[in-house]
Amino acid sequence: MSYSPIARHFPILTWGRRYDRKLLSSDLTAAVIVTIMLIPQSLAYAMLAGLPPEAGIYASIAPILLYAIFGTSNALAVGPVAVVSLMTAAAVGQVADQGTVGYAAAALTLAGLSGAILLAMGLLRLGFIANFLSHPVIAGFITASGILIATGQVKHILGVKASGQTLPEMLLSLGQHLQEVNPVTLALGAGAIAFLFWVRKGMKGALMRLGVPVGLAGILVKTGPILAVVVTTLLVARFDLGSAGVAIVGAVPQSLPPLTLPDLSPDLIRSLALPALLISVIGFVESISVAQTLAAKKRQRIDPDQELIGLGAANLGAAFTGGYPVTGGFARSVVNFDAGAATPAAGAFTAIGLTIAAVALTPLIHFLPTATLAATIIVAVLSLVDFTILRTAWTYSRADFSAVAVTILLTLGMGVEAGVTAGVALSILLHLWRSSRPHIAEVGLVPGTQHFRNILRHDVQTDPAILTLRVDESLWFANAAFLENHVLRRLADDRAVQHVILMFSAVNEVDLSALESLEALNHRLRDSGVTLHFSEVKGPVMDRLERSHLLDQLTGKVFQSQWDAWAALAAVHGAFQTAPPPALESFAT
Amino acid sequence: MSYSPIARHFPILTWGRRYDRKLLSSDLTAAVIVTIMLIPQSLAYAMLAGLPPEAGIYASIAPILLYAIFGTSNALAVGPVAVVSLMTAAAVGQVADQGTVGYAAAALTLAGLSGAILLAMGLLRLGFIANFLSHPVIAGFITASGILIATGQVKHILGVKASGQTLPEMLLSLGQHLQEVNPVTLALGAGAIAFLFWVRKGMKGALMRLGVPVGLAGILVKTGPILAVVVTTLLVARFDLGSAGVAIVGAVPQSLPPLTLPDLSPDLIRSLALPALLISVIGFVESISVAQTLAAKKRQRIDPDQELIGLGAANLGAAFTGGYPVTGGFARSVVNFDAGAATPAAGAFTAIGLTIAAVALTPLIHFLPTATLAATIIVAVLSLVDFTILRTAWTYSRADFSAVAVTILLTLGMGVEAGVTAGVALSILLHLWRSSRPHIAEVGLVPGTQHFRNILRHDVQTDPAILTLRVDESLWFANAAFLENHVLRRLADDRAVQHVILMFSAVNEVDLSALESLEALNHRLRDSGVTLHFSEVKGPVMDRLERSHLLDQLTGKVFQSQWDAWAALAAVHGAFQTAPPPALESFAT
Repeated sequence: MSYSPIARHFPILTWGRRYDRKLLSSDLTAAVIVTIMLIPQSLAYAMLAGLPPEAGIYASIAPILLYAIFGTSNALAVGPVAVVSLMTAAAVGQVADQGTVGYAAAALTLAGLSGAILLAMGLLRLGFIANFLSHPVIAGFITASGILIATGQVKHILGVKASGQTLPEMLLSLGQHLQEVNPVTLALGAGAIAFLFWVRKGMKGALMRLGVPVGLAGILVKTGPILAVVVTTLLVARFDLGSAGVAIVGAVPQSLPPLTLPDLSPDLIRSLALPALLISVIGFVESISVAQTLAAKKRQRIDPDQELIGLGAANLGAAFTGGYPVTGGFARSVVNFDAGAATPAAGAFTAIGLTIAAVALTPLIHFLPTATLAATIIVAVLSLVDFTILRTAWTYSRADFSAVAVTILLTLGMGVEAGVTAGVALSILLHLWRSSRPHIAEVGLVPGTQHFRNILRHDVQTDPAILTLRVDESLWFANAAFLENHVLRRLADDRAVQHVILMFSAVNEVDLSALESLEALNHRLRDSGVTLHFSEVKGPVMDRLERSHLLDQLTGKVFQSQWDAWAALAAVHGAFQTAPPPALESFAT
Repeated sequence: MSYSPIARHFPILTWGRRYDRKLLSSDLTAAVIVTIMLIPQSLAYAMLAGLPPEAGIYASIAPILLYAIFGTSNALAVGPVAVVSLMTAAAVGQVADQGTVGYAAAALTLAGLSGAILLAMGLLRLGFIANFLSHPVIAGFITASGILIATGQVKHILGVKASGQTLPEMLLSLGQHLQEVNPVTLALGAGAIAFLFWVRKGMKGALMRLGVPVGLAGILVKTGPILAVVVTTLLVARFDLGSAGVAIVGAVPQSLPPLTLPDLSPDLIRSLALPALLISVIGFVESISVAQTLAAKKRQRIDPDQELIGLGAANLGAAFTGGYPVTGGFARSVVNFDAGAATPAAGAFTAIGLTIAAVALTPLIHFLPTATLAATIIVAVLSLVDFTILRTAWTYSRADFSAVAVTILLTLGMGVEAGVTAGVALSILLHLWRSSRPHIAEVGLVPGTQHFRNILRHDVQTDPAILTLRVDESLWFANAAFLENHVLRRLADDRAVQHVILMFSAVNEVDLSALESLEALNHRLRDSGVTLHFSEVKGPVMDRLERSHLLDQLTGKVFQSQWDAWAALAAVHGAFQTAPPPALESFAT
């Protein structure tokens, strides 16, 4: 399938043309289920972000519509998600106090910046930046964020006024307020948590034992959160639990998403730029991995750069309609997919459902206890917490383990921004450090073959006059001096060596610093009467070297294969004649 | 030679034991010549750093003595150098005004921080950090610094009060003050410049034509700067040029280096920490390259980690004796070496010479015009300016060229700290970017060999059912997705492929993210009926993979060599039987 440039940036033109009744019916069903699921989730995540509940609903309407136009995934559901909500609270909390007008305005600015960054990355095709977030860092970050989020909600379950951005602060603050626990709130919250866990683990089985068909049972499970909302709201309203100290959502404006203009003052932009970048990249990574997983199941393809544009448009939409930063959520997308969403139109219908909710249903949630929303969040995010990555990484490599451990510890101890930044920085630094001290193997001929392997690991033939070093890394400024020193140190111990062959099969690049270092090595070896050769230099590296003076001044030769080098040099010396490997016969004849 | 731990950290214990009359005589001669050269140079560099002239002398005494105890180079002369003086002016200028007590105090703090950083790097063996400064970045930085320094001194030659930290600022400010040029100062300054250039280029030849032996002529050339100092000072004193508006050095305290305590207030340390780090690393790189060059000429060895300790001690010494950051200087070390310095004792004798100068000679320089010092600096630093690196880098690679160009432009346009930071950051980012999109070559058998090369560059045998991809990069998180996508895209176009062989000869590492990506690739290929094999997996990589589940789940095999893989798989298919390469006979029999 070939795309015109316009169709590439407006995927809706492609799927819209083949839209029919069957697709409509699938999409409508999915939309109804997702809408029911999203109402409590949107309210809860807005609370997590420190925003009024309606912001969560608004953040689910325009963004979904815009993603439906620009996005490439058929099942991705865009809106508020847990981790991004937490990051929003952390970022906006640095520039404004919760509950103030400035706080909500800063959240709009954050969404606008995030949208602009995503859009720019998409148009400039910078999606590869997300590759610099390693899997262990992401896994560690998500786990730590889940813990932070769940801990942060405990105060709503207990009905106390604790605070804190980091795990120690939160725990300390909870401890200090432990005498003020409101028993009614705790009963409601704990009940909701228990119910929601049962919904996840036991409800489907129970329904099926009651004879409910498996499909319907699956759908009914999705209504669990809204059931908790309805029941606890009714309890509070009926028994006037508000006057018993149970915190409730209260008055929520009954309106369409408002038209809002984000505050673009330079100071605010400067303080929110870095958090916006982190939110964009993390949101993109979360979204694209969900989209790719779901697409792979139906052998569809996701265009990462177009996804950036879709998410950018969605965030700009959130900025102008009273929302806050959004991305493609895991749970809601899976529900959307399982419910049969066939095109992005399912998202558009969900947006319509949520609009109806925003206009018609908001008065009904006046008595909704915040403890119920907190319970929804806790049960949702605990599924993100997964420490097995620590064990996997420990078994596999200490470097990967350090990256995960630092990410988890710093996220818990110093907050989300410090955690993810340190994780990314550490994983890149560890990579740089390792490639600055490359593995250099001394190799010899595997008898009976033309293959050369490490003398320390394999039983191989060598020649005392010939030293072959396989350099297991591209040569660049950080390791140029390392190779030079390694060769010189090796030769200082061994006066028999007359030829040094650098086997370049693993050298994918030689930069200018490394070139200068190789030239210096050539001169120093010449001064001590040793000839320098190269073998298995790759095409792109050879092209580069031919533009320099190294090859003119080289005391030895460049051989196409290590076998050629060995055959040419070892033939001159003793070792080779004494024990000719079988393969030589075919070579020599 | 084996070292005890104590002897390792106190090289003086090693060379001190074999010290004799012959060494003493060499060292004394060298010390006299270097002292004569250092007096004007120290005064000049102190002026460049924005400090009173005596600070330059003080910075040459205790540091030389301490380096003589802890350093490993026999010829390195430690003291104020041009680039570090410029960086000191830039760093200290941000926290205090020139001429104030706070300025000199901050310079002490900077030296103390720099000493602590160098010492810590030495004790923790972090000398490799200097490798992250690439040759092109250093070359560009030195060239740009030379231009900045020379331009900054023009005001002293013209006798005007210009200012500015960057080239555009300096040129603009010079232009604005052009009417105020003092003709007498200009005559003295231009005369000194012309004389010093002649000293460099023509004096030695002229002396030799007059019959002076070559050795003595070489020594007399070193007295050129002090001659310029003496003559211009006498001129100013005799003709009272000070009242004609010629700026002079004025009263200089006549004393031993004072005992000073650096200001360690947290605010000051915070603002000077980054500049101190940059000064430490740049100073270390400059010093170690001089030391290694000189040591190589006498086949001696330099211990980089011990050099860090030596330079750290020298800078701490400067901090406590009224100096400012120091390092091993190129020009003075070469002079020291040429004059026959045989051990670090030469440095100690130089320190004694400078102490005598500080006590006895300072009154004599009252009438020394600053224009003469500026001339000394200009002539010295113009030898640093070398734009050929731009052409070399352009020919060799665009990435190296960008790093040089950015370093030069930003150093000139935004100052030394911005320039070197941007150069290092850009060169590292370019390296990361390149290794995030590796070269992946499709390879085939070179007929008549067991060697496999790129099908696009060589005439090779292939088999439509077998796709062999040589991955030319270690696999890590930044390129893990790239490989996966590359293979899947390649297979989407070619339904004939039944086996994919990933040839890992150039893969020096597989991190956890890449492992997960390979596992995903294995599953996806299995789903589409393609078998995944590996060949030429290196020992360290194989050790790692054996700790994972990849090998258990792998649909194909791991072959020791690509030739084994080809022989095993191609034998099953058509291509191989049709045209058996000669080498197969020896393999099959």
